[in-house]
Amino acid sequence: MYQLFIGNKNYSSWSLRPWLLATELEIPFEEQLVPFDEGGSWNKFRKFSPTGLVPCLVDGDTTVWESLAITEYLYESHPRVWPADKQARAWARCAASEMHAGFFALRNQCSMNCGVTVSLHRIDEALQKDLKRIDELWQQGLSRFGGPFLAGQEFTAVDAFFAPVVLRLKGYQLSLGQQAMGYCERILALPGMQSWVEAGINEPWREVTHDEELLAVGDIVEDRRV
Amino acid sequence: MYQLFIGNKNYSSWSLRPWLLATELEIPFEEQLVPFDEGGSWNKFRKFSPTGLVPCLVDGDTTVWESLAITEYLYESHPRVWPADKQARAWARCAASEMHAGFFALRNQCSMNCGVTVSLHRIDEALQKDLKRIDELWQQGLSRFGGPFLAGQEFTAVDAFFAPVVLRLKGYQLSLGQQAMGYCERILALPGMQSWVEAGINEPWREVTHDEELLAVGDIVEDRRV
Repeated sequence: MYQLFIGNKNYSSWSLRPWLLATELEIPFEEQLVPFDEGGSWNKFRKFSPTGLVPCLVDGDTTVWESLAITEYLYESHPRVWPADKQARAWARCAASEMHAGFFALRNQCSMNCGVTVSLHRIDEALQKDLKRIDELWQQGLSRFGGPFLAGQEFTAVDAFFAPVVLRLKGYQLSLGQQAMGYCERILALPGMQSWVEAGINEPWREVTHDEELLAVGDIVEDRRV
Repeated sequence: MYQLFIGNKNYSSWSLRPWLLATELEIPFEEQLVPFDEGGSWNKFRKFSPTGLVPCLVDGDTTVWESLAITEYLYESHPRVWPADKQARAWARCAASEMHAGFFALRNQCSMNCGVTVSLHRIDEALQKDLKRIDELWQQGLSRFGGPFLAGQEFTAVDAFFAPVVLRLKGYQLSLGQQAMGYCERILALPGMQSWVEAGINEPWREVTHDEELLAVGDIVEDRRV
Protein backbone atom coordinates (compact mmCIF):
# COMPACT_ATOMS: atom_id res chain seq x y z
CA MET A 1 0.00 0.00 0.00
CA TYR A 2 1.08 3.59 -0.61
CA GLN A 3 2.69 5.29 2.37
CA LEU A 4 1.95 9.02 2.34
CA PHE A 5 4.23 11.09 4.55
CA ILE A 6 2.69 14.38 5.61
CA GLY A 7 3.33 17.15 8.13
CA ASN A 8 0.94 18.67 10.66
CA LYS A 9 -2.56 18.91 9.28
CA ASN A 10 -3.03 22.32 10.85
CA TYR A 11 -0.12 23.88 8.95
CA SER A 12 0.99 21.77 6.02
CA SER A 13 -0.78 23.03 2.92
CA TRP A 14 1.34 20.91 0.61
CA SER A 15 0.50 17.75 2.55
CA LEU A 16 -3.20 18.46 2.20
CA ARG A 17 -3.09 18.25 -1.60
CA PRO A 18 -2.21 14.56 -2.21
CA TRP A 19 -3.91 13.52 1.02
CA LEU A 20 -7.23 15.04 -0.08
CA LEU A 21 -6.80 13.73 -3.61
CA ALA A 22 -6.28 10.15 -2.45
CA THR A 23 -8.99 10.43 0.21
CA GLU A 24 -11.68 11.85 -2.08
CA LEU A 25 -10.87 9.36 -4.86
CA GLU A 26 -10.78 6.50 -2.37
CA ILE A 27 -7.24 5.52 -3.29
CA PRO A 28 -6.06 3.42 -0.34
CA PHE A 29 -2.98 4.75 1.48
CA GLU A 30 -1.39 4.63 4.88
CA GLU A 31 -0.98 8.05 6.45
CA GLN A 32 2.42 8.72 8.01
CA LEU A 33 2.08 11.99 9.89
CA VAL A 34 5.45 13.35 11.03
CA PRO A 35 5.02 16.56 13.04
CA PHE A 36 7.23 19.55 12.29
CA ASP A 37 10.03 20.27 14.73
CA GLU A 38 10.45 23.77 16.05
CA GLY A 39 13.34 25.41 14.18
CA GLY A 40 13.17 23.17 11.12
CA SER A 41 12.45 19.56 10.27
CA TRP A 42 14.90 19.04 7.42
CA ASN A 43 17.07 16.42 9.17
CA LYS A 44 14.06 14.49 10.39
CA PHE A 45 12.25 14.59 7.05
CA ARG A 46 15.39 13.74 5.06
CA LYS A 47 15.11 10.20 6.45
CA PHE A 48 12.18 9.52 4.14
CA SER A 49 12.13 12.48 1.71
CA PRO A 50 15.12 13.47 -0.47
CA THR A 51 14.27 17.18 -0.25
CA GLY A 52 13.60 17.08 3.48
CA LEU A 53 10.06 18.24 2.67
CA VAL A 54 6.57 16.80 2.79
CA PRO A 55 4.49 15.41 1.19
CA CYS A 56 6.33 12.32 0.07
CA LEU A 57 4.77 9.15 -1.29
CA VAL A 58 6.48 5.81 -0.88
CA ASP A 59 5.29 2.91 -3.01
CA GLY A 60 7.41 -0.16 -2.31
CA ASP A 61 10.91 0.83 -3.42
CA THR A 62 9.76 3.94 -5.28
CA THR A 63 9.91 7.31 -3.51
CA VAL A 64 7.96 10.16 -5.06
CA TRP A 65 8.75 13.44 -3.37
CA GLU A 66 7.01 16.27 -5.19
CA SER A 67 3.28 17.09 -5.17
CA LEU A 68 2.87 17.25 -8.93
CA ALA A 69 5.00 14.14 -9.42
CA ILE A 70 2.92 12.32 -6.78
CA THR A 71 -0.18 13.37 -8.70
CA GLU A 72 1.13 12.07 -12.02
CA TYR A 73 2.36 8.88 -10.34
CA LEU A 74 -1.08 8.22 -8.91
CA TYR A 75 -2.69 9.10 -12.25
CA GLU A 76 -0.84 6.25 -13.95
CA SER A 77 -2.77 3.74 -11.83
CA HIS A 78 -5.87 5.81 -11.02
CA PRO A 79 -7.24 7.59 -14.11
CA ARG A 80 -9.75 9.63 -12.09
CA VAL A 81 -6.88 11.77 -10.76
CA TRP A 82 -7.26 14.01 -13.85
CA PRO A 83 -10.38 14.71 -15.91
CA ALA A 84 -11.17 12.16 -18.62
CA ASP A 85 -11.69 14.89 -21.22
CA LYS A 86 -8.45 15.93 -22.91
CA GLN A 87 -9.19 19.67 -22.95
CA ALA A 88 -10.29 19.65 -19.32
CA ARG A 89 -7.21 17.63 -18.39
CA ALA A 90 -4.88 20.11 -20.11
CA TRP A 91 -6.60 23.01 -18.34
CA ALA A 92 -6.52 21.23 -14.98
CA ARG A 93 -2.81 20.51 -15.30
CA CYS A 94 -2.09 24.13 -16.23
CA ALA A 95 -4.03 25.45 -13.25
CA ALA A 96 -2.43 22.98 -10.82
CA SER A 97 1.01 23.77 -12.20
CA GLU A 98 0.36 27.51 -11.88
CA MET A 99 -0.52 26.93 -8.23
CA HIS A 100 2.58 24.79 -7.73
CA ALA A 101 4.99 27.56 -8.71
CA GLY A 102 3.00 30.72 -8.13
CA PHE A 103 0.68 32.76 -5.92
CA PHE A 104 3.55 33.65 -3.62
CA ALA A 105 1.86 36.65 -2.04
CA LEU A 106 -1.07 34.53 -0.91
CA ARG A 107 1.19 31.71 0.20
CA ASN A 108 3.62 33.93 2.11
CA GLN A 109 1.17 36.38 3.62
CA CYS A 110 -1.62 33.93 4.40
CA SER A 111 0.04 30.75 5.60
CA MET A 112 -2.38 27.90 6.18
CA ASN A 113 -3.57 27.47 9.73
CA CYS A 114 -6.76 25.42 9.82
CA GLY A 115 -7.98 26.41 13.25
CA VAL A 116 -7.44 30.15 13.16
CA THR A 117 -9.36 33.06 11.68
CA VAL A 118 -7.35 36.20 10.99
CA SER A 119 -8.22 39.76 10.12
CA LEU A 120 -5.47 41.03 7.83
CA HIS A 121 -3.95 44.45 8.49
CA ARG A 122 -3.89 45.15 4.78
CA ILE A 123 -4.29 43.55 1.38
CA ASP A 124 -1.35 44.75 -0.66
CA GLU A 125 -1.08 44.93 -4.44
CA ALA A 126 0.66 41.57 -4.81
CA LEU A 127 -2.02 39.80 -2.77
CA GLN A 128 -4.75 41.56 -4.72
CA LYS A 129 -3.17 40.38 -7.96
CA ASP A 130 -3.08 36.77 -6.72
CA LEU A 131 -6.71 36.91 -5.64
CA LYS A 132 -7.79 38.41 -8.95
CA ARG A 133 -6.03 35.67 -10.88
CA ILE A 134 -7.49 32.91 -8.71
CA ASP A 135 -10.96 34.37 -9.21
CA GLU A 136 -10.41 34.54 -12.96
CA LEU A 137 -9.02 31.01 -13.14
CA TRP A 138 -11.78 29.44 -11.05
CA GLN A 139 -14.49 31.28 -12.96
CA GLN A 140 -12.99 30.10 -16.21
CA GLY A 141 -12.87 26.47 -15.11
CA LEU A 142 -16.33 26.44 -13.54
CA SER A 143 -17.93 28.12 -16.57
CA ARG A 144 -16.10 26.20 -19.23
CA PHE A 145 -16.44 22.71 -17.79
CA GLY A 146 -19.81 23.22 -16.11
CA GLY A 147 -18.86 22.59 -12.46
CA PRO A 148 -19.43 21.82 -9.69
CA PHE A 149 -15.66 21.21 -9.58
CA LEU A 150 -12.98 23.25 -11.33
CA ALA A 151 -12.59 20.93 -14.30
CA GLY A 152 -16.07 19.46 -14.49
CA GLN A 153 -18.39 17.11 -12.68
CA GLU A 154 -15.76 15.19 -10.75
CA PHE A 155 -13.32 16.16 -8.03
CA THR A 156 -9.84 15.91 -9.59
CA ALA A 157 -6.27 16.87 -8.74
CA VAL A 158 -6.79 20.51 -9.69
CA ASP A 159 -9.36 20.81 -6.88
CA ALA A 160 -6.89 19.19 -4.49
CA PHE A 161 -4.23 21.70 -5.54
CA PHE A 162 -6.49 24.62 -4.71
CA ALA A 163 -7.93 23.16 -1.49
CA PRO A 164 -5.38 25.00 0.70
CA VAL A 165 -6.32 28.22 -1.11
CA VAL A 166 -9.92 27.63 -0.07
CA LEU A 167 -8.80 27.28 3.56
CA ARG A 168 -6.71 30.44 3.29
CA LEU A 169 -9.57 32.47 1.84
CA LYS A 170 -11.74 31.36 4.74
CA GLY A 171 -9.08 31.77 7.41
CA TYR A 172 -8.08 35.25 6.31
CA GLN A 173 -11.64 36.37 5.52
CA LEU A 174 -10.89 37.06 1.87
CA SER A 175 -13.64 37.33 -0.73
CA LEU A 176 -13.75 36.47 -4.39
CA GLY A 177 -16.67 36.61 -6.81
CA GLN A 178 -19.92 34.74 -6.22
CA GLN A 179 -19.04 31.77 -8.42
CA ALA A 180 -15.71 31.31 -6.64
CA MET A 181 -17.26 31.63 -3.18
CA GLY A 182 -19.83 28.96 -4.08
CA TYR A 183 -16.96 26.72 -5.11
CA CYS A 184 -15.24 27.32 -1.75
CA GLU A 185 -18.37 26.19 0.07
CA ARG A 186 -18.47 22.97 -1.93
CA ILE A 187 -14.81 22.20 -1.22
CA LEU A 188 -15.18 22.96 2.49
CA ALA A 189 -18.15 20.57 2.62
CA LEU A 190 -16.21 17.59 1.25
CA PRO A 191 -15.92 14.80 3.84
CA GLY A 192 -12.15 14.62 3.30
CA MET A 193 -11.77 18.35 3.84
CA GLN A 194 -13.86 18.32 7.01
CA SER A 195 -11.91 15.40 8.37
CA TRP A 196 -8.56 17.13 7.66
CA VAL A 197 -9.59 20.41 9.30
CA GLU A 198 -11.04 18.62 12.32
CA ALA A 199 -7.82 16.68 12.78
CA GLY A 200 -5.74 19.85 12.34
CA ILE A 201 -7.69 21.69 15.00
CA ASN A 202 -7.25 18.81 17.42
CA GLU A 203 -3.52 18.38 16.95
CA PRO A 204 -1.55 18.85 20.18
CA TRP A 205 1.46 20.49 18.49
CA ARG A 206 2.06 24.23 18.14
CA GLU A 207 4.69 25.66 15.83
CA VAL A 208 5.79 29.08 17.06
CA THR A 209 7.24 30.00 13.65
CA HIS A 210 4.00 29.24 11.83
CA ASP A 211 1.90 30.95 14.47
CA GLU A 212 4.07 34.07 14.43
CA GLU A 213 3.52 34.40 10.69
CA LEU A 214 -0.13 35.11 11.41
CA LEU A 215 0.61 37.83 13.93
CA ALA A 216 2.93 39.56 11.47
CA VAL A 217 0.11 40.10 8.99
CA GLY A 218 -3.06 40.44 11.04
CA ASP A 219 -5.06 40.05 14.21
CA ILE A 220 -6.44 36.74 15.39
CA VAL A 221 -10.24 36.84 15.39
CA GLU A 222 -10.79 33.26 16.48
CA ASP A 223 -8.64 30.30 17.47
CA ARG A 224 -10.59 27.05 17.41
CA ARG A 225 -7.62 24.85 18.23
CA VAL A 226 -7.88 22.76 21.35
CA MET B 1 0.93 22.16 -35.80
CA TYR B 2 1.82 23.20 -32.25
CA GLN B 3 2.55 26.91 -31.81
CA LEU B 4 5.13 27.46 -29.07
CA PHE B 5 5.25 31.01 -27.75
CA ILE B 6 8.58 31.89 -26.18
CA GLY B 7 10.46 34.99 -25.01
CA ASN B 8 13.99 36.11 -25.87
CA LYS B 9 16.34 33.18 -26.19
CA ASN B 10 19.08 35.07 -24.41
CA TYR B 11 17.04 35.56 -21.24
CA SER B 12 14.03 33.25 -21.10
CA SER B 13 15.02 30.16 -19.15
CA TRP B 14 11.45 28.90 -18.95
CA SER B 15 11.05 29.16 -22.72
CA LEU B 16 14.15 27.06 -23.25
CA ARG B 17 12.65 24.04 -21.49
CA PRO B 18 9.76 23.05 -23.81
CA TRP B 19 11.61 24.42 -26.85
CA LEU B 20 14.61 22.15 -26.21
CA LEU B 21 12.37 19.21 -25.37
CA ALA B 22 10.42 19.48 -28.61
CA THR B 23 13.56 20.21 -30.64
CA GLU B 24 15.61 17.29 -29.30
CA LEU B 25 12.70 14.86 -29.61
CA GLU B 26 11.92 16.14 -33.12
CA ILE B 27 8.37 17.06 -32.21
CA PRO B 28 7.32 19.50 -34.94
CA PHE B 29 6.30 22.98 -33.74
CA GLU B 30 6.17 26.52 -34.97
CA GLU B 31 8.26 28.89 -32.88
CA GLN B 32 6.56 32.15 -31.97
CA LEU B 33 9.22 34.34 -30.41
CA VAL B 34 7.76 37.44 -28.76
CA PRO B 35 10.52 39.67 -27.35
CA PHE B 36 10.18 41.05 -23.83
CA ASP B 37 9.27 44.72 -23.50
CA GLU B 38 11.30 46.91 -21.20
CA GLY B 39 9.33 47.43 -18.01
CA GLY B 40 7.19 44.31 -18.32
CA SER B 41 5.50 42.28 -21.02
CA TRP B 42 2.38 41.20 -19.20
CA ASN B 43 -0.11 43.07 -21.39
CA LYS B 44 1.55 41.91 -24.58
CA PHE B 45 1.84 38.28 -23.46
CA ARG B 46 -1.71 38.17 -22.08
CA LYS B 47 -2.93 38.20 -25.69
CA PHE B 48 -1.84 34.59 -26.07
CA SER B 49 -1.03 33.41 -22.53
CA PRO B 50 -3.54 33.55 -19.63
CA THR B 51 -0.80 34.25 -17.08
CA GLY B 52 0.96 36.83 -19.24
CA LEU B 53 4.00 34.58 -19.13
CA VAL B 54 5.95 32.40 -21.52
CA PRO B 55 6.25 29.63 -22.55
CA CYS B 56 2.77 28.92 -23.83
CA LEU B 57 1.78 26.14 -26.20
CA VAL B 58 -1.20 26.50 -28.50
CA ASP B 59 -2.58 23.39 -30.17
CA GLY B 60 -5.62 24.31 -32.22
CA ASP B 61 -8.17 25.57 -29.71
CA THR B 62 -6.23 24.29 -26.67
CA THR B 63 -3.92 26.68 -24.82
CA VAL B 64 -1.41 25.13 -22.44
CA TRP B 65 0.34 27.78 -20.40
CA GLU B 66 2.61 26.15 -17.82
CA SER B 67 5.92 24.35 -18.46
CA LEU B 68 5.02 21.17 -16.61
CA ALA B 69 1.54 21.11 -18.11
CA ILE B 70 3.04 21.60 -21.58
CA THR B 71 5.35 18.67 -20.85
CA GLU B 72 2.50 16.37 -19.81
CA TYR B 73 0.40 17.55 -22.75
CA LEU B 74 3.16 16.64 -25.18
CA TYR B 75 3.73 13.34 -23.35
CA GLU B 76 0.19 12.24 -24.14
CA SER B 77 1.05 12.21 -27.86
CA HIS B 78 4.82 11.71 -27.68
CA PRO B 79 5.79 8.98 -25.19
CA ARG B 80 9.50 9.76 -25.43
CA VAL B 81 8.92 12.95 -23.39
CA TRP B 82 9.36 10.89 -20.21
CA PRO B 83 11.44 7.73 -19.69
CA ALA B 84 9.73 4.47 -20.65
CA ASP B 85 10.71 2.83 -17.35
CA LYS B 86 8.22 3.51 -14.57
CA GLN B 87 10.81 4.09 -11.82
CA ALA B 88 12.88 6.37 -14.03
CA ARG B 89 9.74 8.24 -15.05
CA ALA B 90 8.71 8.80 -11.43
CA TRP B 91 12.20 10.04 -10.58
CA ALA B 92 12.33 12.31 -13.64
CA ARG B 93 8.98 13.86 -12.79
CA CYS B 94 10.08 14.47 -9.19
CA ALA B 95 13.30 16.14 -10.29
CA ALA B 96 11.55 18.30 -12.91
CA SER B 97 8.88 19.25 -10.42
CA GLU B 98 11.52 20.15 -7.81
CA MET B 99 13.11 22.45 -10.40
CA HIS B 100 9.75 23.95 -11.28
CA ALA B 101 9.06 25.23 -7.77
CA GLY B 102 12.50 25.44 -6.22
CA PHE B 103 16.13 26.48 -6.48
CA PHE B 104 15.21 30.11 -5.93
CA ALA B 105 18.70 31.24 -4.89
CA LEU B 106 20.16 29.99 -8.15
CA ARG B 107 17.28 31.36 -10.19
CA ASN B 108 17.28 34.78 -8.52
CA GLN B 109 21.01 35.31 -8.16
CA CYS B 110 22.08 33.78 -11.46
CA SER B 111 19.50 34.80 -14.02
CA MET B 112 20.01 33.20 -17.41
CA ASN B 113 21.92 35.27 -19.93
CA CYS B 114 23.26 33.05 -22.69
CA GLY B 115 25.91 35.38 -24.04
CA VAL B 116 27.50 36.60 -20.83
CA THR B 117 30.04 35.13 -18.42
CA VAL B 118 29.97 36.51 -14.89
CA SER B 119 32.28 36.28 -11.92
CA LEU B 120 30.07 36.28 -8.83
CA HIS B 121 30.99 38.54 -5.90
CA ARG B 122 30.07 35.80 -3.48
CA ILE B 123 28.34 32.45 -3.20
CA ASP B 124 26.03 32.73 -0.22
CA GLU B 125 24.63 29.93 1.89
CA ALA B 126 21.34 29.68 0.00
CA LEU B 127 23.13 29.40 -3.33
CA GLN B 128 25.51 26.80 -1.92
CA LYS B 129 22.55 24.80 -0.70
CA ASP B 130 20.95 24.86 -4.16
CA LEU B 131 24.18 23.79 -5.82
CA LYS B 132 24.69 20.98 -3.36
CA ARG B 133 21.19 19.66 -3.97
CA ILE B 134 21.56 19.85 -7.77
CA ASP B 135 24.85 17.96 -7.53
CA GLU B 136 23.23 15.31 -5.36
CA LEU B 137 20.18 15.00 -7.60
CA TRP B 138 22.16 14.75 -10.83
CA GLN B 139 24.59 12.24 -9.35
CA GLN B 140 21.69 10.15 -8.16
CA GLY B 141 20.00 10.14 -11.56
CA LEU B 142 23.18 9.50 -13.53
CA SER B 143 24.29 6.66 -11.24
CA ARG B 144 20.93 5.03 -10.82
CA PHE B 145 19.79 5.07 -14.44
CA GLY B 146 23.22 4.72 -16.04
CA GLY B 147 23.41 7.97 -18.01
CA PRO B 148 24.37 9.68 -20.21
CA PHE B 149 21.19 11.63 -19.46
CA LEU B 150 19.63 12.23 -16.05
CA ALA B 151 17.05 9.48 -16.29
CA GLY B 152 18.85 7.05 -18.58
CA GLN B 153 19.98 6.61 -22.13
CA GLU B 154 17.60 9.05 -23.73
CA PHE B 155 17.18 12.81 -23.46
CA THR B 156 13.84 13.39 -21.70
CA ALA B 157 11.91 16.25 -20.12
CA VAL B 158 13.97 16.18 -16.93
CA ASP B 159 17.05 17.11 -18.96
CA ALA B 160 15.10 19.91 -20.60
CA PHE B 161 14.05 21.19 -17.17
CA PHE B 162 17.66 21.39 -16.01
CA ALA B 163 19.06 22.80 -19.28
CA PRO B 164 18.86 26.42 -18.03
CA VAL B 165 20.71 25.31 -14.88
CA VAL B 166 23.51 24.03 -17.10
CA LEU B 167 23.70 27.44 -18.80
CA ARG B 168 23.72 29.19 -15.43
CA LEU B 169 26.52 27.02 -14.06
CA LYS B 170 28.57 27.87 -17.15
CA GLY B 171 27.66 31.55 -17.24
CA TYR B 172 28.42 32.13 -13.56
CA GLN B 173 31.49 29.86 -13.49
CA LEU B 174 30.02 27.55 -10.88
CA SER B 175 31.39 24.06 -10.31
CA LEU B 176 29.76 20.85 -9.21
CA GLY B 177 31.26 17.35 -8.90
CA GLN B 178 32.94 15.59 -11.80
CA GLN B 179 29.91 13.52 -12.77
CA ALA B 180 27.70 16.62 -12.90
CA MET B 181 30.26 18.62 -14.90
CA GLY B 182 30.46 15.82 -17.44
CA TYR B 183 26.70 15.95 -17.74
CA CYS B 184 26.85 19.72 -18.34
CA GLU B 185 29.27 19.19 -21.22
CA ARG B 186 26.91 16.67 -22.82
CA ILE B 187 23.93 19.01 -22.54
CA LEU B 188 25.88 21.97 -23.91
CA ALA B 189 26.92 19.83 -26.89
CA LEU B 190 23.34 19.01 -27.93
CA PRO B 191 22.48 20.49 -31.33
CA GLY B 192 19.32 22.08 -29.94
CA MET B 193 21.23 23.69 -27.09
CA GLN B 194 23.90 25.08 -29.40
CA SER B 195 21.29 26.45 -31.74
CA TRP B 196 19.40 28.15 -28.87
CA VAL B 197 22.54 29.76 -27.41
CA GLU B 198 23.72 30.91 -30.84
CA ALA B 199 20.35 32.52 -31.51
CA GLY B 200 20.32 34.13 -28.06
CA ILE B 201 23.72 35.68 -28.57
CA ASN B 202 22.66 37.09 -31.92
CA GLU B 203 19.39 38.63 -30.76
CA PRO B 204 19.23 42.37 -31.33
CA TRP B 205 17.25 43.10 -28.14
CA ARG B 206 18.68 44.14 -24.80
CA GLU B 207 16.67 44.13 -21.58
CA VAL B 208 18.10 46.61 -19.09
CA THR B 209 16.34 44.89 -16.17
CA HIS B 210 17.78 41.50 -16.99
CA ASP B 211 21.23 42.91 -17.65
CA GLU B 212 21.24 44.88 -14.40
CA GLU B 213 20.56 41.69 -12.47
CA LEU B 214 24.00 40.48 -13.50
CA LEU B 215 25.77 43.60 -12.32
CA ALA B 216 24.08 43.37 -8.94
CA VAL B 217 25.69 40.00 -8.24
CA GLY B 218 29.02 39.99 -10.07
CA ASP B 219 31.43 41.35 -12.65
CA ILE B 220 31.09 40.64 -16.34
CA VAL B 221 34.03 38.60 -17.55
CA GLU B 222 32.90 38.24 -21.14
CA ASP B 223 29.96 39.42 -23.27
CA ARG B 224 29.70 37.44 -26.47
CA ARG B 225 26.51 39.11 -27.62
CA VAL B 226 26.66 40.91 -30.96
